[in-house]
Amino acid sequence: MSAQIGSAQIGVTGLAVMGANLARNLARNGYTVALHNRSVAKTDALLDAHGTEGDFVRTETLAELVESLEKPRRVLIMVKAGGPVDSVIDALVPLMEPGDIIIDGGNSNFQDTRRREADLAKKDLHFVGVGVSGGEEGALLGPSIMPGGSKESYDALGPLLEKISAKVDGAPCCAWIGTDGAGHFVKMVHNGIEYADMQVIGEAYDLLRSAAGIEPAAQSEIFAKWNEGQLASFLIEITAEVLGHVDAKTGKPLVDVIVDSAGQKGTGRWTVQSGLDLGSPISAIAESVFARGLSSQRDQRAIAQGVLAGHEVAVELGADFVEDVRQALYASKLISYAQGIDMLQSAAIEYNWDLKLDEIASLWRGGCIIRAELLKDITKAYAAAEKPANLLFAPAFAAEIAEVLPAWRRVVSTAVQLGIPVPVFSSSLAYYDGLRRPRLPAALTQGLRDLFGAHTYNRVDVEGTFHTQWSGDKTEISAVDTH
Amino acid sequence: MSAQIGSAQIGVTGLAVMGANLARNLARNGYTVALHNRSVAKTDALLDAHGTEGDFVRTETLAELVESLEKPRRVLIMVKAGGPVDSVIDALVPLMEPGDIIIDGGNSNFQDTRRREADLAKKDLHFVGVGVSGGEEGALLGPSIMPGGSKESYDALGPLLEKISAKVDGAPCCAWIGTDGAGHFVKMVHNGIEYADMQVIGEAYDLLRSAAGIEPAAQSEIFAKWNEGQLASFLIEITAEVLGHVDAKTGKPLVDVIVDSAGQKGTGRWTVQSGLDLGSPISAIAESVFARGLSSQRDQRAIAQGVLAGHEVAVELGADFVEDVRQALYASKLISYAQGIDMLQSAAIEYNWDLKLDEIASLWRGGCIIRAELLKDITKAYAAAEKPANLLFAPAFAAEIAEVLPAWRRVVSTAVQLGIPVPVFSSSLAYYDGLRRPRLPAALTQGLRDLFGAHTYNRVDVEGTFHTQWSGDKTEISAVDTH
Repeated sequence: MSAQIGSAQIGVTGLAVMGANLARNLARNGYTVALHNRSVAKTDALLDAHGTEGDFVRTETLAELVESLEKPRRVLIMVKAGGPVDSVIDALVPLMEPGDIIIDGGNSNFQDTRRREADLAKKDLHFVGVGVSGGEEGALLGPSIMPGGSKESYDALGPLLEKISAKVDGAPCCAWIGTDGAGHFVKMVHNGIEYADMQVIGEAYDLLRSAAGIEPAAQSEIFAKWNEGQLASFLIEITAEVLGHVDAKTGKPLVDVIVDSAGQKGTGRWTVQSGLDLGSPISAIAESVFARGLSSQRDQRAIAQGVLAGHEVAVELGADFVEDVRQALYASKLISYAQGIDMLQSAAIEYNWDLKLDEIASLWRGGCIIRAELLKDITKAYAAAEKPANLLFAPAFAAEIAEVLPAWRRVVSTAVQLGIPVPVFSSSLAYYDGLRRPRLPAALTQGLRDLFGAHTYNRVDVEGTFHTQWSGDKTEISAVDTH
Repeated sequence: MSAQIGSAQIGVTGLAVMGANLARNLARNGYTVALHNRSVAKTDALLDAHGTEGDFVRTETLAELVESLEKPRRVLIMVKAGGPVDSVIDALVPLMEPGDIIIDGGNSNFQDTRRREADLAKKDLHFVGVGVSGGEEGALLGPSIMPGGSKESYDALGPLLEKISAKVDGAPCCAWIGTDGAGHFVKMVHNGIEYADMQVIGEAYDLLRSAAGIEPAAQSEIFAKWNEGQLASFLIEITAEVLGHVDAKTGKPLVDVIVDSAGQKGTGRWTVQSGLDLGSPISAIAESVFARGLSSQRDQRAIAQGVLAGHEVAVELGADFVEDVRQALYASKLISYAQGIDMLQSAAIEYNWDLKLDEIASLWRGGCIIRAELLKDITKAYAAAEKPANLLFAPAFAAEIAEVLPAWRRVVSTAVQLGIPVPVFSSSLAYYDGLRRPRLPAALTQGLRDLFGAHTYNRVDVEGTFHTQWSGDKTEISAVDTH
């Protein structure tokens, strides 16, 4: 612990658990880390507990923090997203010099990051929004890191972030994502996929439990086995752990004593709202957000049980229902990745980011919540000379999905008859069938819109925009598309 | 046509087709209407064509427009939503006096309306955002009208709006909705339901066509017959008309020559984004927006047809497939109304609006795109002393849905096996089954979130917030919910 001016490579302000753990990770990796927190007590508590883990510089004010840094200065802000980030930036700016780097490692909305980056660029300061995934443990031991901001800032910042990131096959789970808000955007989509990943696991669990009567302890073994194959991933691994856990108070499976209501605010919601802005059909991700919303409507759910009929139909589960469910889960999971990546492709165009999908998939392989074996093949698919227009079109995935499709259809059909809600399994399948369908009923939609609102339509056989004079003699005229 | 100062009851600025038609509607109903347009040529063209239909006052500037009005002045702005509305407001404000009323009859975002109302209230001006549905014809002959703003402003404005609105059983399709942006919010939700309404019609059409091989001409008769029963509505009526229309150029059904790609920008998208902000699970409305998005991805769709397997399963269609589809359509339609109304209930709390759901359902019965017989029963349900917490809980609807549920399950199961995408049919059913389910897998989701992010959970048996020390000895501790 020293207080030498210009001695630290990076400063961290905001020492709640995520900030503290990133600071410790940096120090453990050999960097001198200047520490600052609004209340000095938190700084001292961190130093008391972990001060011997590496080189820390204790500071009491932002001015001291900035003073303690080598140039170009790197200050990592780890405070609550929203107003608090702006406040810290406002306090930092007068203390910094052209070329210095302000880093926001929180879960900020990418639009805020775009705005902040543009504002600070005018002052010749770099602003880097960094998505960090992996939770508290990841922050300490190696998270997946998604930095945006200018390419130039990455030259000065990237080596530190790569050093503290998770590694897979020796490669860091960190790469420059793209300018301004690209890092926070990609982190947001990661979280959207995470929502869907958890929901499809829940649907599989519900089917095994409600249709096949398999208790949580037995399911724990099933998920553990699934984790050795195609589905291998962090979330499947911890599903086995949660389902295997027995509540000490009641002796029941823990999953049976947890209230079945999950919140939906935050990055999952943002993902869907952004997908809508981009016109990207991320229905599986949306259904997983809505499933949480529905689960939270406990008053309505309590009434519904008394008044809504079920009319479930008893169906045969088929020869290997457990394997069918595994395949349906895998298919649905692939769809949520395909939709998330589709959204990245649309965003790259809309926000002028040169997103490298292979690098993004690669850095999701470790450290983050959605880390999965699958991401190796996704990385390969986008590292190929010819990038697929949709993940599902990559030969490896087209083949995989063809293989699991029959089981997927069986499982959704079974769930529908048994009255077991599988919103993401079924929405994913509808997306898949919609994507591959030669003709969609959108033609009828366009006809209706032309009739009631003169919205016009295009024809399959002639270029141009047309309108049928529905309230007149029903002849067709060329029209200017005004809607 | 006169130019007397203070002689007109209302002024209209912006004389594109919607503004012109509302002005003509007002004049035909006996009001003296002052007209203004940025280019005077448009004003004169309107007067040339329709000047004899009633009393119009021609004005060339906004100052003249304002001068021509009796007090309190009423100025209806009919310009493009967004910046243009703000520009006209800015130009009007210095010309108006305390107590005057500025009305925005366009498709503005309700958040803009809330902001504008708050700004103008500080200047003692009333700002009324008015949702108008019914398209061009409705504007001329009688639309459905949803005014927000202060109750006081409705005393001065309501009588005019009620007079020009559609009437059902003698009652005007217009009522004061609530303060500030309530009118535009309710119009937005109307449009979200409209998206879902059209999509479920499309899914029914696709099933009848692709599963049962019924050609558009024959379907036209089926929809015309459906329009005489439970499904009776404007959209079903015009579906019969569109499906019955033969393209003169090719001799084919028109629906077969229209490009099957529908846009999704606008109020449908806003509805879903607002539903997400409110935590309201409006999955059916969302799926209808995403279905349009998917239909627009024509490049991907073209590739998909060549590379994605189908593995469709031949299934028996059942004794009366057409009737099954009708029932599934009705059930799905009910769900989209239930979700839209749920969103209204959440918004009433969030934005402090005293929404009268019976009045809203009542004014949707005529003039607007979603007008339907069904709305009479919805009106009744919310006029009852005990309001249902969800539309589906109203005894009449619980009974109806119980009746159609078996067909709904059969149809979705059939579609899933045949590979026909029915995103809203299946999403609606998942919502229904989710709502009535005693336990949802959200409990597992909460367990996973507690494991990887210490997000904590509630227990079914004890009050409080808990965390299992997953990386320690796995005992449970009481925790403060920080997430």
